[in-house]
Amino acid sequence: MSIIVLGTVALDTVKTPAGFRKEILGGSAAHFAMSARFFSKVNLVAVIGEDFPESHIDFLRNKGINLCSLIREKGKTFRWQGKYSGDCNLATTLNTKLGVLANFKPCITEKEKWIKNIFLANVDPDIQHKLLDNMRCPKLIGVDSMNFWIKHKRASLLKLLKRVHIYVANDAEARDLSQEDNLLKAAKALKNFGPEMIVIKKGEHGVLFYSGSFIFSLPAYPVLKIIDPTGAGDTFAGGFMGYLTKQKKINQKVLKQALVLGAVIASFNVEGFGLSCTANLTLKQINSRLKIFKRIISL
Amino acid sequence: MSIIVLGTVALDTVKTPAGFRKEILGGSAAHFAMSARFFSKVNLVAVIGEDFPESHIDFLRNKGINLCSLIREKGKTFRWQGKYSGDCNLATTLNTKLGVLANFKPCITEKEKWIKNIFLANVDPDIQHKLLDNMRCPKLIGVDSMNFWIKHKRASLLKLLKRVHIYVANDAEARDLSQEDNLLKAAKALKNFGPEMIVIKKGEHGVLFYSGSFIFSLPAYPVLKIIDPTGAGDTFAGGFMGYLTKQKKINQKVLKQALVLGAVIASFNVEGFGLSCTANLTLKQINSRLKIFKRIISL
Repeated sequence: MSIIVLGTVALDTVKTPAGFRKEILGGSAAHFAMSARFFSKVNLVAVIGEDFPESHIDFLRNKGINLCSLIREKGKTFRWQGKYSGDCNLATTLNTKLGVLANFKPCITEKEKWIKNIFLANVDPDIQHKLLDNMRCPKLIGVDSMNFWIKHKRASLLKLLKRVHIYVANDAEARDLSQEDNLLKAAKALKNFGPEMIVIKKGEHGVLFYSGSFIFSLPAYPVLKIIDPTGAGDTFAGGFMGYLTKQKKINQKVLKQALVLGAVIASFNVEGFGLSCTANLTLKQINSRLKIFKRIISL
Repeated sequence: MSIIVLGTVALDTVKTPAGFRKEILGGSAAHFAMSARFFSKVNLVAVIGEDFPESHIDFLRNKGINLCSLIREKGKTFRWQGKYSGDCNLATTLNTKLGVLANFKPCITEKEKWIKNIFLANVDPDIQHKLLDNMRCPKLIGVDSMNFWIKHKRASLLKLLKRVHIYVANDAEARDLSQEDNLLKAAKALKNFGPEMIVIKKGEHGVLFYSGSFIFSLPAYPVLKIIDPTGAGDTFAGGFMGYLTKQKKINQKVLKQALVLGAVIASFNVEGFGLSCTANLTLKQINSRLKIFKRIISL
């Protein structure tokens, strides 16, 4: 089964207690794809600039990601610069250069329009709407966003939430959009905005899943050394949505397994800069850590 | 089976987003006892001043807590004043008046000296040592502390850790004492200080348990309305240690159940000011929430 992901492909400059990396491959769609590929055929929709290294494109293609709708436009690739300190739980954005992202209009192939599983990773909600407008038979739509859009494009985001099945947010975003401090209340409020399922990512504290019929709380896999948490949320979403895409039926058991797999792949993501760890990951390594993780959280 | 708990019995003045309470019954030993009593006979060792209301003593006694070693001394009862804002995850101490706690020498009955299960709730580690010196056949010793003692009585606390089996700390204390940002590394470092088992309380994010042989990570029960989190950590420890006290053998299954029960009783504690919710709790209510909690965290 196929999934289509709309988001960013970026050049990230990151400083963490473990080191510094300049203009490495990153972005929400790239991290999502690198994780979802273990379970589904991933179609990536994003924009890059003239300066985007060809080697990065080869790298993504070699990982089996369909890049038909990765468009190169005149101008510079989207760049993000950030730093983490202490236990790496909070990113401080130092600089954002939108570049070609400022005028991005997603354009997908005729074949891609018929993909049933869709993930709208973090970009301007107006752009997320545009992709959805093109989809012919959506079955499962997930969406992520960020504080910037919650503040500046609230109306568009709220309209979008009425069109999707799953809203994936981090704890700060969930509180921000719902205006509720308590995370469970926040989840309930967010569900009232439209999506059937709410997934609240809590970084090193795991994930809270909420749908009217069931709540599931999952700690994070306890990683010994965090090198770079950039993209962990997108990696989680990739594993989660990628696994769901593979399933014939979505029930509680399948959702729990999807959440656990997302958490496991995200735990690999933070053990290296950028995509370095998830790129070299094997399904065998994922399953081996999955087994350990289940031991750590099972009653 | 009996457990003996050394700690504080206090008059707490608390402000939270849900309201304000002046000089209500609190303290580490009181919260611990109110929770541990569901599983074990609790013997409370603490000091109160001349101003301590007789009604509070009656209240504790009526809950079945043995107060033979609750000593009344000349002077004022220990008072703590604090406030919480937002999601109530962080307490700000506004005022601490030690009163009779400043010269507290624990004094227990001959019978209590033979109790095998011991919890040293948060007081000066020198006082914790003194109680231990009196115990004739300790089998299971747990200890809690706080940032103040980690800073000012580090040597005494480290010496104490060599004498105990379980160290219960919150995340900030664990990081502080171990000098490790990463919680799993912190737990490993703390274990090297002496205790076989490390329990790191993460407030609304649950608990991390570590012993050489196994790791267990547990989210917190998702409470909809937090009224007052004061004493939640002591309530958790009470349920955890109280349940262990009741057991013939301590194995992984028993430890997990103890941790889950601690978390469940702590979730009741935060739903009311001071001891108001745990005081009126029944074992039936605990078991009912335990069932829900297990559903929320089970794979």
